[in-house]
Amino acid sequence: MKLYKKGDASSYTLGVFPTIELLKQRPQNVKRVVVHSSIEQNKGYPVIQTLCQKHHIPIDIHDRTIEKLSPKNNCYAIGVFETYQSCLQNDNHVVLEHPMDMGNMGTMMRTMLGFGYKNLVIIKPAVDIFDPKVIRASMGAIFHLNAVYYDSFEDYYQQFSNRKFYPFMLEGATNIHQVLPEKPYSLILGNESHGLDDHYLNYGQSIFIPHSEDIDSLNLSMALGIALFHFSKEQWEGKEVLKENI
Amino acid sequence: MKLYKKGDASSYTLGVFPTIELLKQRPQNVKRVVVHSSIEQNKGYPVIQTLCQKHHIPIDIHDRTIEKLSPKNNCYAIGVFETYQSCLQNDNHVVLEHPMDMGNMGTMMRTMLGFGYKNLVIIKPAVDIFDPKVIRASMGAIFHLNAVYYDSFEDYYQQFSNRKFYPFMLEGATNIHQVLPEKPYSLILGNESHGLDDHYLNYGQSIFIPHSEDIDSLNLSMALGIALFHFSKEQWEGKEVLKENI
Repeated sequence: MKLYKKGDASSYTLGVFPTIELLKQRPQNVKRVVVHSSIEQNKGYPVIQTLCQKHHIPIDIHDRTIEKLSPKNNCYAIGVFETYQSCLQNDNHVVLEHPMDMGNMGTMMRTMLGFGYKNLVIIKPAVDIFDPKVIRASMGAIFHLNAVYYDSFEDYYQQFSNRKFYPFMLEGATNIHQVLPEKPYSLILGNESHGLDDHYLNYGQSIFIPHSEDIDSLNLSMALGIALFHFSKEQWEGKEVLKENI
Repeated sequence: MKLYKKGDASSYTLGVFPTIELLKQRPQNVKRVVVHSSIEQNKGYPVIQTLCQKHHIPIDIHDRTIEKLSPKNNCYAIGVFETYQSCLQNDNHVVLEHPMDMGNMGTMMRTMLGFGYKNLVIIKPAVDIFDPKVIRASMGAIFHLNAVYYDSFEDYYQQFSNRKFYPFMLEGATNIHQVLPEKPYSLILGNESHGLDDHYLNYGQSIFIPHSEDIDSLNLSMALGIALFHFSKEQWEGKEVLKENI
């Protein structure tokens, strides 16, 4: 086993929780699971064992592999999987232009899943979503999503032009609080440093998230989280309980 | 100059942008500014020079100090300041119980400032807000805020009991979409791993942010950002332009 490099044909999860997510969502792509000999006490281990047995996936106990791939962390399990291609559904999309930060990408994937968004478009150049750092930051949310790369926004637009586009821009025309979403739609956000450039004002209804002049802009994952919270409001505002108080 | 250690009586900003924020917001606390000899081309340097002149703050050119305090980064300026105590205003508060992640803390400060919240209560044990990593992640937003530590939530509560409390909890009683804020209020959020424990159900109106069961919880800074976006809605929903399109 080698450390992951951008574009490798296989990658791996680091940790029990994302490994379970991988086994639940993408068992067909898993080659094997490597565990540390001290995993026995971990309450996630029986879950891993059951899932591996069900899908005929081998489990190897191999401390040195774990220590090599995750030298700094308390990591008990690694799920090795073949990277895969996904297909976009004609549902609401999140479009990220040139996202470059692995931690941000993982956080955004987790937030998307939290608000029920499963289709992610990434305009290249961009971070490699199968980097173990992205997977870890996503806490396994990545395995629930359809994430598809495009070489340019225009390539994506040609395929999905028949929908509503909402580019998020500091110079956007409409205050987010005043938007009533028309489905299906694509929420488009620029990258960490530059945002979207002016030509996105030509696509659909450009939106700004109002904030004080004391800051230049919200950070990218925060802006996306707020956008998803607002745009999915209708789906969630009637919910009466999130978790039962046991 | 030594690397900052928790609780030191002085700390420092890393970078031109947060140094300017420091000089603008807290000039009375600045002892000196250290710059790298290659700062001349940086367009922020004249701003630093003007502010230092105005407030009689010395500027030292000293490359080795910069390289020592910021070995990995392209850092051109460091603002050395005495740490200070702030006072809470009887306005809306954000209360964070045991926040432990420096990057998260900085992001939350920046988001608070973005939505017009300037009063931050931190329940110990917690991250040291004057750590240069927090300052950097806040992009200088810290210097706009009144951040005050308390030993326990009860200490804080005794001083500010005459207001509305909104603890954010997975088991919260009320969906955030259905809350009409009563001012002044305190939004209370737990830490990255544990959230708030059940006894917070006894304070004010507990709130949950609805999300799918595919994730355990939103991350802390995301939950706070969404809370601030929703609670400050009235202030921002009439805004017609964020930035002029030049």
